[in-house]
Amino acid sequence: MKIGFIGLGNMGSAMAKNLLNAKHSLRVYNRTPARAEKLTQDGASVATSPADAAKEAELLITMLADDAAVEEVLFGEAGAAHALPEGAVHASMSTISVELSRRLTQAHRERGQHYVAATVFGRPDMATQAKLFVVAAGDSAPIERCRPAFDAIGQKTFVVDREPHKANVVKLAGNFLITGMLEGMGESFALAAKFGIDREAFLEILTGSLFGAPAYKTYGSMIAKDRFEPVGFKLPLGFKDNRLLLRAAEEANVPMPLASLVHDRFVAALAHGLKDADWSAIAGLAYRNAGL
Amino acid sequence: MKIGFIGLGNMGSAMAKNLLNAKHSLRVYNRTPARAEKLTQDGASVATSPADAAKEAELLITMLADDAAVEEVLFGEAGAAHALPEGAVHASMSTISVELSRRLTQAHRERGQHYVAATVFGRPDMATQAKLFVVAAGDSAPIERCRPAFDAIGQKTFVVDREPHKANVVKLAGNFLITGMLEGMGESFALAAKFGIDREAFLEILTGSLFGAPAYKTYGSMIAKDRFEPVGFKLPLGFKDNRLLLRAAEEANVPMPLASLVHDRFVAALAHGLKDADWSAIAGLAYRNAGL
Amino acid sequence: MKIGFIGLGNMGSAMAKNLLNAKHSLRVYNRTPARAEKLTQDGASVATSPADAAKEAELLITMLADDAAVEEVLFGEAGAAHALPEGAVHASMSTISVELSRRLTQAHRERGQHYVAATVFGRPDMATQAKLFVVAAGDSAPIERCRPAFDAIGQKTFVVDREPHKANVVKLAGNFLITGMLEGMGESFALAAKFGIDREAFLEILTGSLFGAPAYKTYGSMIAKDRFEPVGFKLPLGFKDNRLLLRAAEEANVPMPLASLVHDRFVAALAHGLKDADWSAIAGLAYRNAGL
Amino acid sequence: MKIGFIGLGNMGSAMAKNLLNAKHSLRVYNRTPARAEKLTQDGASVATSPADAAKEAELLITMLADDAAVEEVLFGEAGAAHALPEGAVHASMSTISVELSRRLTQAHRERGQHYVAATVFGRPDMATQAKLFVVAAGDSAPIERCRPAFDAIGQKTFVVDREPHKANVVKLAGNFLITGMLEGMGESFALAAKFGIDREAFLEILTGSLFGAPAYKTYGSMIAKDRFEPVGFKLPLGFKDNRLLLRAAEEANVPMPLASLVHDRFVAALAHGLKDADWSAIAGLAYRNAGL
Repeated sequence: MKIGFIGLGNMGSAMAKNLLNAKHSLRVYNRTPARAEKLTQDGASVATSPADAAKEAELLITMLADDAAVEEVLFGEAGAAHALPEGAVHASMSTISVELSRRLTQAHRERGQHYVAATVFGRPDMATQAKLFVVAAGDSAPIERCRPAFDAIGQKTFVVDREPHKANVVKLAGNFLITGMLEGMGESFALAAKFGIDREAFLEILTGSLFGAPAYKTYGSMIAKDRFEPVGFKLPLGFKDNRLLLRAAEEANVPMPLASLVHDRFVAALAHGLKDADWSAIAGLAYRNAGL
Repeated sequence: MKIGFIGLGNMGSAMAKNLLNAKHSLRVYNRTPARAEKLTQDGASVATSPADAAKEAELLITMLADDAAVEEVLFGEAGAAHALPEGAVHASMSTISVELSRRLTQAHRERGQHYVAATVFGRPDMATQAKLFVVAAGDSAPIERCRPAFDAIGQKTFVVDREPHKANVVKLAGNFLITGMLEGMGESFALAAKFGIDREAFLEILTGSLFGAPAYKTYGSMIAKDRFEPVGFKLPLGFKDNRLLLRAAEEANVPMPLASLVHDRFVAALAHGLKDADWSAIAGLAYRNAGL
Repeated sequence: MKIGFIGLGNMGSAMAKNLLNAKHSLRVYNRTPARAEKLTQDGASVATSPADAAKEAELLITMLADDAAVEEVLFGEAGAAHALPEGAVHASMSTISVELSRRLTQAHRERGQHYVAATVFGRPDMATQAKLFVVAAGDSAPIERCRPAFDAIGQKTFVVDREPHKANVVKLAGNFLITGMLEGMGESFALAAKFGIDREAFLEILTGSLFGAPAYKTYGSMIAKDRFEPVGFKLPLGFKDNRLLLRAAEEANVPMPLASLVHDRFVAALAHGLKDADWSAIAGLAYRNAGL
Repeated sequence: MKIGFIGLGNMGSAMAKNLLNAKHSLRVYNRTPARAEKLTQDGASVATSPADAAKEAELLITMLADDAAVEEVLFGEAGAAHALPEGAVHASMSTISVELSRRLTQAHRERGQHYVAATVFGRPDMATQAKLFVVAAGDSAPIERCRPAFDAIGQKTFVVDREPHKANVVKLAGNFLITGMLEGMGESFALAAKFGIDREAFLEILTGSLFGAPAYKTYGSMIAKDRFEPVGFKLPLGFKDNRLLLRAAEEANVPMPLASLVHDRFVAALAHGLKDADWSAIAGLAYRNAGL
């Protein structure tokens, strides 16, 4: 499949590489070109602009940091939206707002293109191992056309609904559940620590009994050590997702007090200089507030 | 092993039965005698008082609703504390307060008896299947003497520390993590529902990707249906555990805002007449607050 | 003084009338013209566009619902910004965002005009009685030129700082304090009501002892009656201010958990159909959550 | 009137002095006798035990730190309950729990004595100036008999209801409103400070416009300075009142999320070593969380 791929951060680079491994033809674009150049050794060709990446693609994948980046790449100067051939599919795999996802649905429809929201769960190491979970929504035919690409980067694809923006809601809800888990674990570890309970033993009990999910293991280990490394997902990006969630919740009139609590943690984390930390560092605030 | 067993609620009855299945000799006591009588068909003998259950036991197990019940059974009229032989072990498997656990440690030590806090994770169906997780703390020798009993009722035993009360902290923290998960799931499902996302599909995505832990599956299914059945653990008991947690957190000066949020949910649930519901019904409040 | 006045809602109409009473010359504009026409009987002339209201003004006052309205009136078609004479002053009295206030500062400076942020505290009845409190920020000279107008509509003017946006921060913080008070009062009255304490007596004690401030009296009376009338300030506008506050707090990295709690109340209120209620109706949710 | 007075802390000493100034006959008792001795110069006689203070009293006033102290003084060794003459009145002016107030109602009734809950609002300086607000509940006749005493120590007496414990609910609610105000002010000042707004100017605007209540002035001044002195009411006592409030709210099934937020602040304050600070220091945490 001829794929245009835009956005080569930690996640995007790993995904692009797996697409190349699966013998897809990739034309890649990244704002800072070095990351694109690096992929030429795996067979990618380098585009000079978003439009250039899109113009001959059957499938355009975007994996960008936020709404602004997606808007710039699609609708900015030499943007991809007008260049993408009629009948081609744009799969937006970034975590973007529900509003933007709706707008993209409309914009591609008007141009005779197809839009699929195909969000992913998983940290960079899972991306490298092609073990991501893909959560997609959109019309059936375009989703089916994306399948080979999704299979190349993930371990499983879930289809939510025909309306693309619902995949974005699911992604935001999933990230929220992780932050809620971080908050719960942070508070629990602070309590355990203050009672002199060995943190590694505590973690082993939790993950060995009811909380065996990968999220508890991955993040629990960081929390037990009170060291939030490696930085798989930067704290300001996690905060952005929390804001997108709260905005979606406002639109739908859903009070989410735990999401508000997490919001306050992100703000406090930034107030304490944690802008370069992994987003899981919000869990560490529970130690700080307990005087540890 | 000669075991005295006090407290035959849903959990206790199932545990007692599994001890009988493992060929231990059981002398059982329950405030309402019918539940004790029922176990005679499995080979248990029925005690006439807590003291009578304890007086020839090598191991006394208590599995009671709350601190008050444990205090009554141990230190009340015909209480077990003075009847338990010197050198015997009391394993308190209920979810009780950190304070009471400390007091029991001291009280048994003064009488030349041993005290083990051996809390359990798992709902009644897991108790029936002898699949509980046991989290124990206390001196090594008495814990080892309890092992055959723990093995008969659970799938795994974790040892936390030599100080018994730390097992209670772990149990309270574990229950708190479940309630935090319930809050996060409740809010997420309310959001998904308001966006018209199929709840069962949403659940499948969550549990099929990052949240495969049993707690997410068991409770997620209830939340998706907005029906909190069967009643495995009554809401007021869950609230009691939340209060014990907050009290422990106060003692240790650990602010736990998520636990406070859960506290408010329990109060609201009771204000709305949910006293006979499963504790997971606190998750349903997120639907109500969103106008569903 | 020749004043252009744009925005004739409940607050704006009352303010405009008081300016006319003080013998200022007013040229008024409102999107729905009927409200402008009504003021002709008090001596106002009616402008055909924002530009028309601004073009001969020494002072332009805007009193509009939100950022979007201010942007439209200033920078939209036939907008006031390009029409306002050089050297004239724009006093924005609406509750707008900190960002927009900064942008207006810049936009007017570039045109050789002056910008004053002059926010007001007080409900419509206080506006009618010329009893508003004006909180202004900006350069001294333009503020002094506004004084006669401020004196005509308010009982007192406070000057915060030379940077206009700081008046907006103060206004948002003031509104937040009211909502925080509403939350506290709502919870307190729910408690009192559940204990069978007479609500009017309770109110009298509070306002007769430590809480004699007007806000406690005005809103306390509504809360005691659980009837949030008259609608002096619509709930969605209060929510908007809460959002502007949270955005300012994010910019400055200030965690505001009480503001987050209030945010959740506004969302719940809208979920329960209170979009036409007075903003103080968020206090009534405390009764609802307590099952009253 | 012959008055027995027990509890001579900062508040109690000032109240006792004002009763002496009003020519009442006082027999005083305090656990540490030095504070009692000091009042002899104003005409008080010193009792050797709570019973001794009560035995000839027409009115017994208790002004003690907490439930435990009241229970000890009333029902402990040489306690006042059995010594107080039949027909005499016990006015409990401390902030005690709703439960204890109910128990005292019952205990005094059984002995043919009268019980009035007569809580007070005001800090030590207001006590010194006889400017307290008294909030009383109980049967009319005993309240009337207390009037001269209440008039000697306060500026105004409010009567809530015939059931004494309702005065305790009002007192707890009033203290809660102060803490809610502290939280709101703390967050507001942190925001203002981060935007570079002069804190004293900010305070002047708030208290000069809508928030002129004494509580805003007294505490606002401390918050503006970020110095919580003098220590009029110790933080652990404020925390105790918050706990009594939450317990009363649990009994009545009233969710109080703002009270829970305040609870978490008290816990955090103690975790940061503020046990000797004035309770208003919880407001300072907002600065800390914002990185100031």
